[in-house]
Amino acid sequence: MADERAGRVADFIRPLRVEPGAKVNLADDYDPGYLAGVRGKKEGRRLLRAGIELLADLQRRLAAENSVGVLVCLQSLDAGGKDGTIRHVMSGINPQGVRVSNFKVPSAEELDHDYLWRYVRRLPRRGEIGIFNRSHYEEVLVVRVHPEHLVRQRLPEAARGPDVWDRRYREINDWERHLTDNGFRIVKLFLNLSKEEQRVRFLKRIDVPERNWKFSAADVRERARWDDYQHAFSEMLSATSTERAPWYVVPADRKWFARLCAGAVLAHTLLGIGPRYPDVGNAARRELAKVRKDLERQAPGRTARDGAR
Amino acid sequence: MADERAGRVADFIRPLRVEPGAKVNLADDYDPGYLAGVRGKKEGRRLLRAGIELLADLQRRLAAENSVGVLVCLQSLDAGGKDGTIRHVMSGINPQGVRVSNFKVPSAEELDHDYLWRYVRRLPRRGEIGIFNRSHYEEVLVVRVHPEHLVRQRLPEAARGPDVWDRRYREINDWERHLTDNGFRIVKLFLNLSKEEQRVRFLKRIDVPERNWKFSAADVRERARWDDYQHAFSEMLSATSTERAPWYVVPADRKWFARLCAGAVLAHTLLGIGPRYPDVGNAARRELAKVRKDLERQAPGRTARDGAR
Repeated sequence: MADERAGRVADFIRPLRVEPGAKVNLADDYDPGYLAGVRGKKEGRRLLRAGIELLADLQRRLAAENSVGVLVCLQSLDAGGKDGTIRHVMSGINPQGVRVSNFKVPSAEELDHDYLWRYVRRLPRRGEIGIFNRSHYEEVLVVRVHPEHLVRQRLPEAARGPDVWDRRYREINDWERHLTDNGFRIVKLFLNLSKEEQRVRFLKRIDVPERNWKFSAADVRERARWDDYQHAFSEMLSATSTERAPWYVVPADRKWFARLCAGAVLAHTLLGIGPRYPDVGNAARRELAKVRKDLERQAPGRTARDGAR
Repeated sequence: MADERAGRVADFIRPLRVEPGAKVNLADDYDPGYLAGVRGKKEGRRLLRAGIELLADLQRRLAAENSVGVLVCLQSLDAGGKDGTIRHVMSGINPQGVRVSNFKVPSAEELDHDYLWRYVRRLPRRGEIGIFNRSHYEEVLVVRVHPEHLVRQRLPEAARGPDVWDRRYREINDWERHLTDNGFRIVKLFLNLSKEEQRVRFLKRIDVPERNWKFSAADVRERARWDDYQHAFSEMLSATSTERAPWYVVPADRKWFARLCAGAVLAHTLLGIGPRYPDVGNAARRELAKVRKDLERQAPGRTARDGAR
């Protein structure tokens, strides 16, 4: 039964997975409007609700077992739906076991370190699900499209050459291998939005007062670099989708479907870990049986005799 | 309408509030079984669901406004329901704006600092709701009942006298005044459990395999110090319930009611802050209107004329 469900989840997300070693061309290979045959929003939401129940149970076990930590990296273009995905997929899960980190403009202290340092500091603990809302992958995305950011990172001369991106892919892969070898799992989600859907969402952000506070004309100007970003994403997906930490390209033109996919990939990962409540062991069990008797004896209006029954 | 709701919430939580300056005697003054006339679990859960919707909306505004941070301190005896309260009240709220901190046995680095240092480091940011699952109040609770913990804190000779608890109350009040003066709100919840209900919950923890991994005979032994804890809680409530950061004694013998109360106190605090979406200002609005036209012109299959309508 549980295996059957795990199989269904695996089948569902397989088309989103970037095969390690594959050369990705986003525009040709992944359709932002793909819906995997799910009949519509209503059906999608029903599936997501069931998925969240499953996730909530798996998260409790993960926290109890306390040996594996899970890092979720969320990337997308502006308006791709990162915030909404976090809100809809992770609400309903115990906030005690989830830690969301945002990465904004690096601080002076962060710039005084190597470019991965600030991500290392926010890694989830064992038993925890950490969500990077934008992640170390920005270092080969926005930094690649705007190489002026590189200058502020004060790299040594030898590290500024044209091979800087290939080197970063390798460094990121090496770091992720270190993490996975040491008991952490990495879930990498790219919310893949079409240019037209981004336009529609931008217009909505301008028109809805409750949204336009977090929107600026600079976001629209960035849209002029669309092709550069598509190229940077394609290269990144090709170079950093590995067996131990594969990328999933989530079709993001329908928000409800993107959320369903994100939940499914996370569920797939947690099912793969298969976390269990710790066994207390025989010695502790015997001690618990003893204190149980003490507690029974303390019952109000009961004699010690009654309590021991 | 909104004011009416705020008034209802205020009325509901008033009996739980510890009046600043009042001399509390827990056993006489607060009934762990109080239910405020709520008819039962079903009604309580309905009210909590409505409360969580309100909280979710207020949290979004708090994060958007980004000027006030909220610290929730949760204290109780073992099995008082802290974890369940966090799970049930805060699930449904965007985890991106909530940060839960647990305080376990202090690390060597933490013991190398003053006793408040580790709590300072985990304070919420502006716009964030931080939850301390156990808080700096442990420093006048478990440390008071087990003064051997004081020794490990390596206090100067002069700070170890019998007035140590009164001094800590003052230091905590001073620190909280500093925080509230600087734009943070502090919500202090004591989940007040009866000795009999603790007994029942301990038995359940022993009997349910999915719970007994986080239970040990030491928890039961601590129960022998019940009266010492009641005394320490009473003194703490008397000394640290202030106008700017009052304590609420939450009747905790019914879990559903404790959760409802915790949600209500948090809602009361957020309603008092009254956070708003930032206004973008006229200059930004004009710029947004301009980029709006650009975006309209980009419509597929539309001319610039159509787009500008």
